[in-house]
Amino acid sequence: MINISDLQTPCLLLELRKLNANLDRMAQRVDALGVRLRPHAKTAKSIDVLDRALGSGTGGITVSTLREAEYFLDHGITDILYAVAIAPAKLATAADLMRRGADLKILVESAETARIVSTEGRRAGLRYKAFVEIDSDGHRAGVRPASAELLEVADALDGVGAELSGVLTHAGSSYHCDDTAEIARIAASEREAVVRSAEFLRQAGHSCPEISLGSTPTITFASDLAGVTEARVGVYMFQDLVMAGLGVCAVEDIALSVLATIIGHRRDTGAPIIDAGWMALSRDRGTSMQKIDQGYGIVCDELGAVLPDMIVVAANQEHGIVGRRDGGMIDPSLFPVGKRLRILPNHACATAAAHDAFHVVGPDGTVEAAWPRCRGW
Amino acid sequence: MINISDLQTPCLLLELRKLNANLDRMAQRVDALGVRLRPHAKTAKSIDVLDRALGSGTGGITVSTLREAEYFLDHGITDILYAVAIAPAKLATAADLMRRGADLKILVESAETARIVSTEGRRAGLRYKAFVEIDSDGHRAGVRPASAELLEVADALDGVGAELSGVLTHAGSSYHCDDTAEIARIAASEREAVVRSAEFLRQAGHSCPEISLGSTPTITFASDLAGVTEARVGVYMFQDLVMAGLGVCAVEDIALSVLATIIGHRRDTGAPIIDAGWMALSRDRGTSMQKIDQGYGIVCDELGAVLPDMIVVAANQEHGIVGRRDGGMIDPSLFPVGKRLRILPNHACATAAAHDAFHVVGPDGTVEAAWPRCRGW
Repeated sequence: MINISDLQTPCLLLELRKLNANLDRMAQRVDALGVRLRPHAKTAKSIDVLDRALGSGTGGITVSTLREAEYFLDHGITDILYAVAIAPAKLATAADLMRRGADLKILVESAETARIVSTEGRRAGLRYKAFVEIDSDGHRAGVRPASAELLEVADALDGVGAELSGVLTHAGSSYHCDDTAEIARIAASEREAVVRSAEFLRQAGHSCPEISLGSTPTITFASDLAGVTEARVGVYMFQDLVMAGLGVCAVEDIALSVLATIIGHRRDTGAPIIDAGWMALSRDRGTSMQKIDQGYGIVCDELGAVLPDMIVVAANQEHGIVGRRDGGMIDPSLFPVGKRLRILPNHACATAAAHDAFHVVGPDGTVEAAWPRCRGW
Repeated sequence: MINISDLQTPCLLLELRKLNANLDRMAQRVDALGVRLRPHAKTAKSIDVLDRALGSGTGGITVSTLREAEYFLDHGITDILYAVAIAPAKLATAADLMRRGADLKILVESAETARIVSTEGRRAGLRYKAFVEIDSDGHRAGVRPASAELLEVADALDGVGAELSGVLTHAGSSYHCDDTAEIARIAASEREAVVRSAEFLRQAGHSCPEISLGSTPTITFASDLAGVTEARVGVYMFQDLVMAGLGVCAVEDIALSVLATIIGHRRDTGAPIIDAGWMALSRDRGTSMQKIDQGYGIVCDELGAVLPDMIVVAANQEHGIVGRRDGGMIDPSLFPVGKRLRILPNHACATAAAHDAFHVVGPDGTVEAAWPRCRGW
């Protein structure tokens, strides 16, 4: 049995108890809202995590790359929604995954792409299942809800080379709210945009079986998802400081951290310097736009207890500089070289991406497993 | 023979002609300054790139992780300086690399660590070669130049389990200058700090054979490196937008880019959306502190010609939103779905880290090779 003191630093830790609690909480939440959970694999990129997120359900997953789709198919998950608008040159890879058994759903956001997908499906002798992307909050791609363009895109899916699976949206603006009431309002408009779009398509004679939406903030604070069939959420598995800043979780719910070792000190402030820089923590400064800027992350002791008012104030490639929020002096004798600390991430997706595996740990620092991650495109 | 149009996106491109020109320019510069070049592998993490950077020389390299040291040793490079202050728990790995033939140099920044290194060297039956880190600009770790503490650290290297190889500094503040005259001043103080420290140690009876310094900006603008023995530089191989903003290179010198495909458009501005988000471009916003903020990177056409006033204005995990600097409308018919673009990186180290290989390309878009990168710690 190995312990975290046996691990080389920097490395990624995942607290199993917190992961399980986060998974349970969201499963209950989605169940109470009366929709299916389609967990987003982009944060974890790990079959061990996604198997747990699916639980006893037979539901599918969401992916952000075809590399993820391939990886999860290789591990036995077939119901996969690739929730980034498809580039035509990626259709051959999508077809290959379908021939290998994937029940793959792709995303289109224009009539132009829908026509290409239909043509390529006929040419390949298969039928692509396509969701149409709805822009519910003006933050990215997609057609306007219940618009003439939406109908044009649906019509361009010819029913032979491609069929309409449903409508999909993601209220990315929910990451930039000032309070949870605002998140709840965005959740309502996210729902309204896709439910209205699906009704519009159905009135025009289209079958539109699925209505898919979600983000961890909106699903956490939605009061009503009537009409919606599935919720896509990813970061809830680990949670992070951006989510804590939004009020989506408590800092204590964050299951992910980077284990680091003190390698020196600043001579002026006594501040410890750790061997986790932005290469291990990521360059993500998502909390810089929030009420409390967490620097490059909150500092905890080796077992994960938060050290009051200590954050990583600066980062070089392989150096992190720990500091007090108030910029005050630190007694370096409390932080000797060799001592280990954990850093909670601003953004779990970005921090996890810097590492090839999760070291799964118990509350006493026992390392119970190493779960590999997939990577690339 | 494959062409970039055969590559799946997003992926990392490396223009061989620009790489070679950047390598030649720095080799000549360092030669003219009368010092040895010890290229830093942290940017490229590729034996193919480092072999070219070393050229016909028999010199060594710098690394930022012991994983890099192991990788380059596996590929035949033995003279390796690990230029991050050593954590005691990493000494066993360092010893293993030395037993396997590495002429490894490590870095210490306190008497406490120097004593541990000496003790562990005796215990392992080998002699660690140690540089002492000098803080030449107050930006990170290290002892003050020519200080009592420097002498204390050198004295703590006992000559049996550890020996003093020299002094080392890195003027990281050179990345935050407003003009090249300021970089030149920092280069002078970087040199002064280590040369004075070495003289101080020699007067105290220490042999201090090596004086090591460098950063791409300071070596580019140093007028005199008298007394210095070696220069450590890394990002010059590829250059990037931060270096261009500092005046270290021209935008046209940047050898690295991310190839991306247009997958949709914003309905409000007509702006194309590409399949390279921060996962492929990195979250590094290094130019946000400079006179010209380049967003998530300058946009070029498929063959690398810069498109005037187009940058990646925003990024989600797998989406990049292209825009005009002035926020103006874009005719989406000029940027159809499927068209490809190249994005020049803010920070080559961070962008390259998001990818597992360089696709080496010629001026006509021919893909000449794929060079793998190492990763992790």
